[in-house]
Amino acid sequence: MLENIRTVLVRPRGSGNIGSVARAMKNMGMNDLAIVGRARTKSFWARAMAVHAGDVLANTQIFTSLRGAIADCGLAVGTTCREGLYRSHSLPPRQVAPKITEAARSGKVALIFGPEDHGLSNQDLQHCQMLITIPASSEYASLNVAQAAMICFYEIFLASREESSGEQIVRAPAEAVEQLFDRMRRSLLNIGFLDPQNPDHLLLALRRILGRAGLEEKDVRIFSGLFRQLEWYANGGREIAEEKRKKGLQIR
Amino acid sequence: MLENIRTVLVRPRGSGNIGSVARAMKNMGMNDLAIVGRARTKSFWARAMAVHAGDVLANTQIFTSLRGAIADCGLAVGTTCREGLYRSHSLPPRQVAPKITEAARSGKVALIFGPEDHGLSNQDLQHCQMLITIPASSEYASLNVAQAAMICFYEIFLASREESSGEQIVRAPAEAVEQLFDRMRRSLLNIGFLDPQNPDHLLLALRRILGRAGLEEKDVRIFSGLFRQLEWYANGGREIAEEKRKKGLQIR
Repeated sequence: MLENIRTVLVRPRGSGNIGSVARAMKNMGMNDLAIVGRARTKSFWARAMAVHAGDVLANTQIFTSLRGAIADCGLAVGTTCREGLYRSHSLPPRQVAPKITEAARSGKVALIFGPEDHGLSNQDLQHCQMLITIPASSEYASLNVAQAAMICFYEIFLASREESSGEQIVRAPAEAVEQLFDRMRRSLLNIGFLDPQNPDHLLLALRRILGRAGLEEKDVRIFSGLFRQLEWYANGGREIAEEKRKKGLQIR
Repeated sequence: MLENIRTVLVRPRGSGNIGSVARAMKNMGMNDLAIVGRARTKSFWARAMAVHAGDVLANTQIFTSLRGAIADCGLAVGTTCREGLYRSHSLPPRQVAPKITEAARSGKVALIFGPEDHGLSNQDLQHCQMLITIPASSEYASLNVAQAAMICFYEIFLASREESSGEQIVRAPAEAVEQLFDRMRRSLLNIGFLDPQNPDHLLLALRRILGRAGLEEKDVRIFSGLFRQLEWYANGGREIAEEKRKKGLQIR
C-alpha cells in the first residue's frame, strides 16, 4: 500500500533536498518520487544525500506540471506552513495520515511539497483535496522540505501499520476530477454563477467540499452529466426545453 | 520546559547535519545544542543548513566527552537504529516523548545522537537510561541523523503540549549518578560480584533498572551510602565489624 503513495516535489531548488527526500522515502517504505520542473536527480548532492536510496532517484518521474504529476492519483494532499484563505482547512499530519493510507489501499495518493523558498502556490493548492501543516514553534515554523517530508512519511508509515478504519471509497483519478472541474468552471461561468473577475474563489470552495467527500468514478460521471446538461441548457437548450415543456414532452 | 532539553551530537561528521539539527531544534522550540568532539558550527554548511537558527549554532557548547556533555542532566536518552544486547530495551519515540517532557519539567534532559556512520557506541549507550529507535522500513532502517533528530523533536514538541501525566520525580544530575556507578563498579569488583574480565555486563543491567526507576538526589545518596559501606566492609572493615559484633557493639 505504501508503494501507492507518490511524493511530488514541485520546483525543488536544492538537489541535496531531492536526495534527502529520496532517502527519507526509502526509510519509510516508499519509492514513488515525482518532480515537477527540472530533473536534478543525477547531481552530486542528490546522490550523496540519497545514500542507499539511489534506486528511488533513478526511478523518479519528471513532469512539466503538477496536474500531470498527479493525473492518476485519487487523492492529492498538499503541505503548507503558512496560513491564509486557501490554507485554513489544513490539518496536522497525524490526523491526515490515516486518510492517506486508507486511500492508498485502493489507488494512488499524491503527497505534494512546494519549493523551499515559498512553498506551494495558491494555484498549486487548488489541486489538493487535503492540506497538511506540521505543528511547529511559532518562532520559526518553516521546516526544511526534506525534514517536513520525513515527518509526513513517518506518520504515514505508522498509520500504515494500523488496521483499516473501515470507510472504503475508491477515489477517481485526479485527471478525471480535474476535467470535471474544468467543465464545472465553464458551465458556472456560463450561467453567471461565478464572477468572471474572480471565478476561483467559489470554485475553490466547491473543490474543497467535493475533495472532503471524495469522489468515486461514478460520482464524477454523475457530476459531469449534471454540468453537461447545464451547459446544454445554457447554450440554447433552454428554449428547446421550454418548447418541449409546453407540449408536455420529456426534456432531452 | 522545552529549553530544558539538550540535544547532544556525539562526534558528528557532516557540518551540514549540525546546521540541519539546529534548524530542526528551533522549529520545535528547542535551543540547547551540545557537541562532543570537534566544533564545526561556524563552517559554511552548518550555517547554510541552519538558515534562521544561527543563534542555536552560536550558543552550541563543545565537550570532549559525552559524560561531560550530560553532567547536569537528570535523564539521558540515546538513539539507535541497530539492535543488539545493549539496545534491546529500545522504545519508539512516541512512547519515550512523554517521559522526556515529564522529566524536563523539573530538570535537564539529554537527547543523544551518534556519528552518522555507526551511531552511538555501546560505551556511549551506558550513559543512557532510555533508548529510542525510530520505526522504519526493514529494507533501509538507517535514517540521516538530522532526520532522526527531527522526528524525535517533533514527538517531544507534540508531547509538550499534552497535560502532565502526573508522576513527578526530580531526577538527580547525570554526573552524580555517574559517580554512583563509578563507586558501584569499584565496590562490586572488590567483593567479586563483578567478573573482572567483563564487569560491564552486569553493571549495564543495574544501570538499566535504576535508569528505569529514575533516581532522585536522595536516592543517589542512599545508594552511595550503601556502596561506601560495602567498600569499607571489603577493605578491612569486615574484621572490625566481626570484632564489634562479638562484643555486642553496633557496627560503625
